[in-house]
This record gives sequence, C-alpha cells and structure tokens, in this order.
Amino acid sequence: MWNCPCSTDMFAKFAEDFSDINSSPSLLMLSEVASLLGVTIIGGSIPEKDADQLYNSCSVFGPNGELKAKHRKIHLFDMGKPLLGEVQFKESDNISAGEEPTVVETDFGRIGIGICHDIRFPELAMSYSARGAHLICYPGAFNMSTGAALWELEQRTRAVDNQLYVASCSPSRDSACSYLIWGHSTVVGPMGEIIATTGHQEAVLIAEIDYAAIQQTRESLPLESQKRNDIYQFVDLLREDSQKALRVGHLDQISYHG
Amino acid sequence: MWNCPCSTDMFAKFAEDFSDINSSPSLLMLSEVASLLGVTIIGGSIPEKDADQLYNSCSVFGPNGELKAKHRKIHLFDMGKPLLGEVQFKESDNISAGEEPTVVETDFGRIGIGICHDIRFPELAMSYSARGAHLICYPGAFNMSTGAALWELEQRTRAVDNQLYVASCSPSRDSACSYLIWGHSTVVGPMGEIIATTGHQEAVLIAEIDYAAIQQTRESLPLESQKRNDIYQFVDLLREDSQKALRVGHLDQISYHG
Repeated sequence: MWNCPCSTDMFAKFAEDFSDINSSPSLLMLSEVASLLGVTIIGGSIPEKDADQLYNSCSVFGPNGELKAKHRKIHLFDMGKPLLGEVQFKESDNISAGEEPTVVETDFGRIGIGICHDIRFPELAMSYSARGAHLICYPGAFNMSTGAALWELEQRTRAVDNQLYVASCSPSRDSACSYLIWGHSTVVGPMGEIIATTGHQEAVLIAEIDYAAIQQTRESLPLESQKRNDIYQFVDLLREDSQKALRVGHLDQISYHG
Repeated sequence: MWNCPCSTDMFAKFAEDFSDINSSPSLLMLSEVASLLGVTIIGGSIPEKDADQLYNSCSVFGPNGELKAKHRKIHLFDMGKPLLGEVQFKESDNISAGEEPTVVETDFGRIGIGICHDIRFPELAMSYSARGAHLICYPGAFNMSTGAALWELEQRTRAVDNQLYVASCSPSRDSACSYLIWGHSTVVGPMGEIIATTGHQEAVLIAEIDYAAIQQTRESLPLESQKRNDIYQFVDLLREDSQKALRVGHLDQISYHG
C-alpha cells in the first residue's frame, strides 16, 4: 500500500473512495499520469474505503485515464501460530476481503490481478488462465521470511503451471519499518524464466515481453489439453460464460504489440 | 523405467504383469528386498502390461513384501511442436494412461504417487493433499531442458502450495542414451526447502523427514482454510467419501516415526 505508512492502524486514515476518482488523490494522480503519457497502469494497491469497509485494492488505468478495473485482495494474509522469528500479522483485523477475481482487457492484453497473498493460491491463477489472461500482475509486499523462501518460487510457478506471463511489483525495503519488505519486483515468462528482476532498493524495472511465447510454449507442451477433467475439475464459480463448469483455457488469437 | 533400455520400442518387450508378482521379476525383487529388510519401497516405474495395454506404473511394497498399491501414470508426456533443440517425444504412442490417483497408507504415513509428467499438474497434488497425504513421491525422468528449467521448481511448488513433503527419484544420466536425463533426485519440505538433493550421477540419497513440520507449517499459515471456496472449487471426481464436492484437506492426527 503505497499511499500510507506501513502500519495497519493507518489504513483507515489513508483509505480512499474508488467510486469517484476525483475524490481520491492517489487514483487521480494515476489517472493523470496514464492519460498524460498514454500508458496503461496497474496501480499497485492502496487502502480503499467503501461505506464502513476497508479493502486492499489495486486500480487499473487505461491510456485515456479511465479507471478500467479494480481488484480487491481476495485472500487476506492472516498468520496463525508464528514460526520462530516471525512477526505476527492478521490482515483481516483491519481489511475486508474482495469477492471476485479481476481480469481486465487492456491495450497490452488480458491481465489478471492478484494482490500479495493472492499469489499463494494456485486456484486464482488457474481461473485467470482459463479466462484467457496473457499476464497476471501481482503487486505484493512479502516479508523477509516468506520473501526469501517463496516470492520468486510462487511467481515462477504460476507462470509455468499456466503457461503465461507473471509480473510482480513490491515496495522497496524500509529498515525503519517494523514489517521488513523483501522487495524483488520481477517479470517471469511462460517457461518460468526470469526476464527481469531487481533487489530490495527503489528501482525502475523495464522489461520487454512477447506474448507470442505463450502460444509457442503451449504448442510445445499443451498442458491444458492434457489435463484430466475425467479425474479432477477446477470450477470457477463466478465465471460468467457457459464454460463455467469446466476449466477450458483459451488464448485469443489477438496480437498485442507494446 | 528402470528395468528396460531407454527406448520406447523396448517397453513392450520388458513390460511385466503386475497382477501376479511371481511372474514379474522386477516386482518380485522389490517384494523380496522390502520383506528382507522390513522397509517400505516406492518402486520407481517400469512398463506394466495388462491384456494388450501398456502402462508406465509404479509399485509400492510394504515391509511384509506385499504389493500395497500401484500407480499408473495419469498424464502422459506428449510433446507438441518441439522448441529449438528439443527432442520430440510422444509417450501415448506406446503407453496408455492410468485412470486414477493413488494414495497409499504406509508405515511411514499416507503417500500420494505421481510419475514424471504427473508433477506438472497442480490438480493431482491438490487431490493428494485433500486426501490427507503427508508426502507425494514422484519417480520421474525429466530431460535436460525441462529438468534444468522445471524439475526443482515443480517439486518445491507442489510442496509449498499443499504444505506437505515431496520426494522425487530420477534415473541417473546415461550419455549413451538419446534421451538425456536430468537426474537430481530430491526431497523437499513443506516450506519448499530442499532437504536433500543429488546430481546426475548414480547416488544413494538419505534424508530424514519430520511430518510434524507439516502441522507446524499449516498452523503458521492455514492456507487450506484461507481458500475461497465461494469463488473457486477444486473437485476430485474419484474421491470416495462425502467430501468429494469440496476440497477440504485434513491431516490425520497420527504420528509416524521412521
């Protein structure tokens, strides 16, 4: 959450209303930058307020500055019994969980959004893949223990298992903060290859991705058609088309250049 | 497949009948060793013949020498269009696919079995986790390209996403064989940590695993209860109990020592 101090009791104070971006200084800024530069922005996450609820929400802006989508974090990070050396954290004390996956059509392909702990759940990535996503973007702030152990692994895994691109964006580490952040924003290709990554300090990461590699990877090894839907099925309950009951992935034959 | 040359046209010649282990020299040998030493053996895989069908099958023996279970590889490795430098391979030309997941109760906990390409499918590991597996064993022979890119990643992923142990066993590399094998038999813990691994040469790998770490990991971060079954569901069609429709994992409160 980039618009507020790294302290859970600050979320309410810094939460913004996404229903009218003119009342939200953070969203207004993102909108203006998107419009000014003619770019698509996946806007990390900030606390969102909606009536008396708070959410951990990511906004997506198109090149005209329009708010194309928002994703409310679906899986909140509630730790159980801390392992040795871990700092206790229970996000649901302050934040409500989102109720649906978010896939957004952009000028740069179909993009699924997950926030931080959302990445730990293969099911969400499966639903994005089945909905035809080319890329899944995960803004996230893993900590020093989960970061070292899992951050890269989970990104590579989601990319490999679904044969698509994954991009993550983490805050940089602030040693003055009690919640020490792992950092390491990364871009991963459909074979699990790391295309670009960075350390824990503030950085701008520029990477070129080629969606043709998705098709190539799937043609080389058609995992989707090799799934055994007679043995198991993944059901995407909120999918709005007739394919709801079966995970049938498809990639639109559209070329995106950018 | 350890009882035959590394050539697909040899499978039929070396296939053995699992229905009577006395007629199967490979299974008989495994049975005798298990019984003689009083150990549990997950017997890698060999070609199995059943009527006019061939399968890629793994046998499991208990300490009395009894054949406790067999797993027929569910997901056959059929490559599509080869990427640059890849050797074409279509397993289904010679082998039929198994029809069910295999979980076996042993003196060393509940063990799910997958063979090679089975590891690429998160759904199979999910079904084993939901059926209460402590450990998933994957005999497998990844090749030089998939091995370097994916072998370790997939093992760590299945362990982390399901918070259980994964053990793999690969043939060693034989440079005289046209299908060059990656090797690297490995044991991974529920946080994705590599407990033991080896290179591409023949080796005996001894590792100690502690199933208490499964419980500890799940108590620390209860991924199972954080899943959003109101948004997605994983359905294990062949599961024989009343929990069939929902992926509700449970770990029996049984201690295994060994």
